[in-house]
Amino acid sequence: MADARTLPLGRLGIIGGGQLARMMIPEAARLGLDTVVLDPTPNSPGGQLAGEQIVGALDDASRLAELVRASTLTTFEIETVDTGGLEALAREGHVIRPAPSLLARIQDKLAQKEQLARAGVPTAEFVAIDTPDARALADFGLPLVQKARRGGYDGRGVAVFKAAVIEEEVLAVPSLAERFVDFRCELAVLVARGLGGEVETYPVVEMVFDDRANVLDLLLAPARIDAAVAERARAVAIAAVEAFDGVGVFGVELFLTRDDEILVNEIAPRPHNSGHWTIEACATSQFEQHVRAVAGLPLGSTRQYCPAVMVNLLGTATARGTPVIVGMEAALALPGVAVHLYGKATVSPFRKMGHVTVTAETMDAALQTAAEARDVLRIEGSDPA
Amino acid sequence: MADARTLPLGRLGIIGGGQLARMMIPEAARLGLDTVVLDPTPNSPGGQLAGEQIVGALDDASRLAELVRASTLTTFEIETVDTGGLEALAREGHVIRPAPSLLARIQDKLAQKEQLARAGVPTAEFVAIDTPDARALADFGLPLVQKARRGGYDGRGVAVFKAAVIEEEVLAVPSLAERFVDFRCELAVLVARGLGGEVETYPVVEMVFDDRANVLDLLLAPARIDAAVAERARAVAIAAVEAFDGVGVFGVELFLTRDDEILVNEIAPRPHNSGHWTIEACATSQFEQHVRAVAGLPLGSTRQYCPAVMVNLLGTATARGTPVIVGMEAALALPGVAVHLYGKATVSPFRKMGHVTVTAETMDAALQTAAEARDVLRIEGSDPA
Repeated sequence: MADARTLPLGRLGIIGGGQLARMMIPEAARLGLDTVVLDPTPNSPGGQLAGEQIVGALDDASRLAELVRASTLTTFEIETVDTGGLEALAREGHVIRPAPSLLARIQDKLAQKEQLARAGVPTAEFVAIDTPDARALADFGLPLVQKARRGGYDGRGVAVFKAAVIEEEVLAVPSLAERFVDFRCELAVLVARGLGGEVETYPVVEMVFDDRANVLDLLLAPARIDAAVAERARAVAIAAVEAFDGVGVFGVELFLTRDDEILVNEIAPRPHNSGHWTIEACATSQFEQHVRAVAGLPLGSTRQYCPAVMVNLLGTATARGTPVIVGMEAALALPGVAVHLYGKATVSPFRKMGHVTVTAETMDAALQTAAEARDVLRIEGSDPA
Repeated sequence: MADARTLPLGRLGIIGGGQLARMMIPEAARLGLDTVVLDPTPNSPGGQLAGEQIVGALDDASRLAELVRASTLTTFEIETVDTGGLEALAREGHVIRPAPSLLARIQDKLAQKEQLARAGVPTAEFVAIDTPDARALADFGLPLVQKARRGGYDGRGVAVFKAAVIEEEVLAVPSLAERFVDFRCELAVLVARGLGGEVETYPVVEMVFDDRANVLDLLLAPARIDAAVAERARAVAIAAVEAFDGVGVFGVELFLTRDDEILVNEIAPRPHNSGHWTIEACATSQFEQHVRAVAGLPLGSTRQYCPAVMVNLLGTATARGTPVIVGMEAALALPGVAVHLYGKATVSPFRKMGHVTVTAETMDAALQTAAEARDVLRIEGSDPA
């Protein structure tokens, strides 16, 4: 019988048990997939909802193998994984999506940019710097951004030099130097790509960053840009994902320059913080879409129902210990506010503890309510500051 | 500090681990509540996502007490529970919402109707019949519906007599006889009521039943009725829930008579099959709303973003054994189709195995896609028919 499948369809293994796994698991469940996560923290945010959690480090080859062997299909919610072990498991015939080889190229920011450049995808000018020092960086010219090739995340592994290269701030690891882009705004496009190469993009969003923590602070969906610019942003994002032959959902971060040029900043090979708003505001959330793509099911509609604004809920600058949420009642009393808490047992300064999505009839209304929610809500800690 | 809460907020116990618990659990998680379910089936639909499952019958007083004592707050997803034990636990100071006394009155269909009648809420004419036989029923007059006072569910415990009372079809249990309503259509309204008596209603929906299985077959949100009728339906539904001083989400089933009268058919003291569409189409789903209400948090917006149609996925008339889903790929390829599978390990004829919600720009488009999805999708079983 064509298209007949015994339930459950299989077991989805997720490398990492953070908030992305947490939001992916209920979507997998309703599409007929059991779940198991690998994470070093017992009762992790994802582990709280998964059928099973394997407790182990993401670079522990034996635990990774245990996860992959316990799963009919493995994906990941974090890209800092040992890809060598995964490639060996893929060669044994285990299904891992996106492919470990793709992950290897993306987690090395230099390899990622080289691949984009080869495919003709526009990015900021860059150069490899194997042993960085002030002179090597200065030779590239200012202003510049130094990026560690590996391990950067939420602003770690990045140094910005505008007027001069300060020796003490140079990262002493293999890096690339990138031309600092004087952007008008930062955009992002979620791209979903299926097994057969079919592609769906979500509406372009606009990201506003918190300079203190270099973490996304406010996200507007859709971005306040011209339709023509949005069209180009979607096309560039698709080209970026196609350059890697990606399968799954990808978050493509873009710069819109003052000359209305679109440049790819970075690609995340997984559902992305810039796509959380799709849970409330789109026909298919990024998490369902990712499960559909990696499971080889048809992609869903990315239609947006209404404007949305997303705000991250970070630990305050002094928060330590058990998380304490302040203002939850006031925030939930605002119209169209959805609060997502990630179930993390401890808070630290600027740690992502949750997010809030506001939906409304107009972007102005959503922005106003989001500002109100941000004013009343905060995550503190039980320990004295 | 006002409105400061340590995370997690507490532990929500859910009596019953079926699909309603399954859909409630991720909403509880993101609002900061851990979960534990009680269900007789190990790895129940809800148990697959809950932090913990206690395996036990819903009428096992010791397991019920174990659940309630392990929870800061207990609710239920099924109303056929031993309320005596729960009332004793509530007297000990355990928080159970809605109240066990409310549940006791609602699970006895005669007591439910008497309460509605006392509050002046319109229902079909009815009479108590303690020891039913053809004569007692005939005395009430035809056409009539005989309903068992307890244990009826999805068409069980109901007998309809139109032209004559057939002795062999009379239910030999304490019952009520109700005047058969020659309705134009069946409507339902979800009512959410908070701890302080605040009320929110969702748009009125229209239900089309499958006569073979007497299970909801097709649901349209919003109902194709006049605004004035919808307004009356919402007012009647609110009056019904207020008659019981209810806290939580309630599914109120209504008849719209050929004279445009609104009559309450039945109340379900919990999220309801007629409200699954709110997951995709409303700012706040019925499951989040129920958690907000029972946890004493502010109610959320019930704004509907777009028309929606819901179809139940029942086992076919001969399905037995392990469930096999046919047509999933074809269904997911249709625009705006969300498939929800409940994770049940075995299928039986007409068993609820999942549902499909279709969202679209217009009701006509949603209806057409829903019809296509229903044509391609079915749940069969591994055992030969």
